[in-house]
Amino acid sequence: MVPHLITALTGPINELEQRMLDAMPAIERWFRLEWMEHTPPFYTSAHLRNAGFKLAPVNTNLFPRGWNFLSEDMLPLAVQAAIAAIEKICPEARNLLIIPENHTRNLSYLANLVQLQRIFQRAGLNVRVGSIDPGVKKATRIELPNGDTVVLEPVMRTGGRLGLKHFDPCTILLNNELATGTPGILEDLYGQYLLPPLHAGATVRCKSKHFRCYEEVGKRFGKMLGIDPWLIHPISAPCEDVDFVQGAGMERLQTEVDALLTKVRRKYKEYGIHEKPFVILKADQGAYSMGAMPVHDAKELEALNRKARSKMAVTKDGMPVQAVLIQEGVPTQERVHESAAEPVVYTMDRYVIGGVYRVHPERGTNENLNAPGASFVPLAFTHGTQMPQPGVRPGTSAPNRFYMYGVVARLAMLAASYELEATDPNAEVYD
Amino acid sequence: MVPHLITALTGPINELEQRMLDAMPAIERWFRLEWMEHTPPFYTSAHLRNAGFKLAPVNTNLFPRGWNFLSEDMLPLAVQAAIAAIEKICPEARNLLIIPENHTRNLSYLANLVQLQRIFQRAGLNVRVGSIDPGVKKATRIELPNGDTVVLEPVMRTGGRLGLKHFDPCTILLNNELATGTPGILEDLYGQYLLPPLHAGATVRCKSKHFRCYEEVGKRFGKMLGIDPWLIHPISAPCEDVDFVQGAGMERLQTEVDALLTKVRRKYKEYGIHEKPFVILKADQGAYSMGAMPVHDAKELEALNRKARSKMAVTKDGMPVQAVLIQEGVPTQERVHESAAEPVVYTMDRYVIGGVYRVHPERGTNENLNAPGASFVPLAFTHGTQMPQPGVRPGTSAPNRFYMYGVVARLAMLAASYELEATDPNAEVYD
Repeated sequence: MVPHLITALTGPINELEQRMLDAMPAIERWFRLEWMEHTPPFYTSAHLRNAGFKLAPVNTNLFPRGWNFLSEDMLPLAVQAAIAAIEKICPEARNLLIIPENHTRNLSYLANLVQLQRIFQRAGLNVRVGSIDPGVKKATRIELPNGDTVVLEPVMRTGGRLGLKHFDPCTILLNNELATGTPGILEDLYGQYLLPPLHAGATVRCKSKHFRCYEEVGKRFGKMLGIDPWLIHPISAPCEDVDFVQGAGMERLQTEVDALLTKVRRKYKEYGIHEKPFVILKADQGAYSMGAMPVHDAKELEALNRKARSKMAVTKDGMPVQAVLIQEGVPTQERVHESAAEPVVYTMDRYVIGGVYRVHPERGTNENLNAPGASFVPLAFTHGTQMPQPGVRPGTSAPNRFYMYGVVARLAMLAASYELEATDPNAEVYD
Repeated sequence: MVPHLITALTGPINELEQRMLDAMPAIERWFRLEWMEHTPPFYTSAHLRNAGFKLAPVNTNLFPRGWNFLSEDMLPLAVQAAIAAIEKICPEARNLLIIPENHTRNLSYLANLVQLQRIFQRAGLNVRVGSIDPGVKKATRIELPNGDTVVLEPVMRTGGRLGLKHFDPCTILLNNELATGTPGILEDLYGQYLLPPLHAGATVRCKSKHFRCYEEVGKRFGKMLGIDPWLIHPISAPCEDVDFVQGAGMERLQTEVDALLTKVRRKYKEYGIHEKPFVILKADQGAYSMGAMPVHDAKELEALNRKARSKMAVTKDGMPVQAVLIQEGVPTQERVHESAAEPVVYTMDRYVIGGVYRVHPERGTNENLNAPGASFVPLAFTHGTQMPQPGVRPGTSAPNRFYMYGVVARLAMLAASYELEATDPNAEVYD
């Protein structure tokens, strides 16, 4: 366990926790039935925020990195989940190709690759890392400070198949969110499984679509559990055709922000919450959240200076922002060593593997923690998500708290499944 | 880790370990393909013996008890495996009924029931314990020393279905090896899954059939891995129509024992093993091993006194012994606190969950450790079976050793799958 972690073990969130614990068999059965109809995304990391009065996902990453931050205890679960996933996708698989982010010499990211490679090797695959970065022209061996090594090899396209020299994979696992668009080399592959699919790429996906799916999932789950879905759902609305630099669409944005703040204010009143509501503005598409901005009053948008506007105008990969997602801000009540912290829950296939805390010492509880200076603290979620302790008083048991986190993370994963089904360009349409 | 455990990390077994590590992707794929054709037994515990020169299963229990001895670290793996198993068997399941052994007031066995109940509750089922012991006439609540409680309820048969008052299960899990035969109340159930099936019961199963299947599995696995299957297989032969009390069939038994000892002696010579070979005689059917007897020379059988003969004549549940399994004795080279120890590996669905050591302070390395006075030491197999460490020198890494144990345990599980398919009275026959 992480020392000095405050997981907000008090407050109304305890009622939610108790409700979920009491309904555990019903919840698990509900997921089981959902997975009969829907295919889970291959892997995800769900970023949650625990406000003490609600618990909601704020981002569902379909190309999760940071597997290296998971504690050793969680790896056997990841291996077991990987075995289950492979068995379903391609039971005859021998070879798996991992496609990493481009242009990365980030040692932490490379350690993430080593960890993914380890997990899939233990699950019984030959695993190699093939870069689509045109700068990688030959196999490059990189030694990490802990003695691990990773070899980046240039991918080769041969007809309809992607591989490496003398390595023809059955499955290609993207750990690259395709932040600058879909590279042609990945298109029209023949007879190979590409996971996640290309339409999960950051420039194709819309966050607003994801949260519309999440809203639907949350409503159905809330009905089953007998709770107000707002307790697990951040109110979200898209706003299209916004140009921060030219100032086009700003009035509409202001109106929408105001409308959303009014909704949140009403909910705060209903629940007797005395904090000041706020929203977060994010680019609806593109690598997530770097331009995310908290807004407490629609008027703040009028007063945006040039610097703030140009920061919002592009994603971290330099893609222009055209549509904005306005999302209810969920303050975090969690701290690690006095720093604001938010849980990140990892899933593979339909299983919760574990989690880490993202911690930022310089950011407030209303701010986005995905920013330079953030660090990760592995958290022994292990027993947590799978081993809740019914009968223990709510708010006093970390395993019970983490069971709830695992449930909400799976709701986010389920929403991603709905989303990918709805946006699949190759989906068969039955009319 | 268990202190003072000597897992025989030296000797020729290291070559086997190295071979398995090197072939990990091939081994895992081999199992994946096998599970496409065969259904894994719901759960098993495989009792292994590591002789330093070979590693072989000596018993594959299809109604494993002792789940309470597994360390806490292993439970999330059990929950995840249970989720996978339920999803395949009955994804709509709400209720699971566990049928325990009869006549048990053994606190350790009851703790095992609590643990099983906990695992399946976490996997999302309402779980209750229904006894088929006619002595259980009303719900009986038993408190365990650690504060856990278990409620034994009398089962009710209503038409074709078995359940409890106001509890209609979809799946019935036997944790009762049916040592005195198949009770009528379990026969001809309608629309309910009974796991394991009745033909896995101790009085129906033949150990000789299991080991014939294991021999087949071992040969195929050995061929794939390029090893002599004897390294993972105890030579076994059945001997029918033996009556220890009347002395009938004893000459034939002596001949068979002698023949098997000769085979083992030949193998010992081939591998330069200087120990004295021996065989173990077991009742071919019935609750296992209580009458198991080591024999170093066929002539010993002539000199058996009345007491020894009558001990062999019945199983621990008083069932008469008619057929005998003669099995190559595998001495154990493992010790916990200077006591002879043997690993017991638990599986659920196709997954290795973890393991414990069975330890007997008063038994020799050639003797059966399943006897009064035996105890169990939970062993942190967790990382072991899923997280081997390639590149580490063989014989120095417990995780690598336990990976090998997990492989051999899965071979035993696969043999049980073959066995249950071959002995299924309802199997469809294609001619």
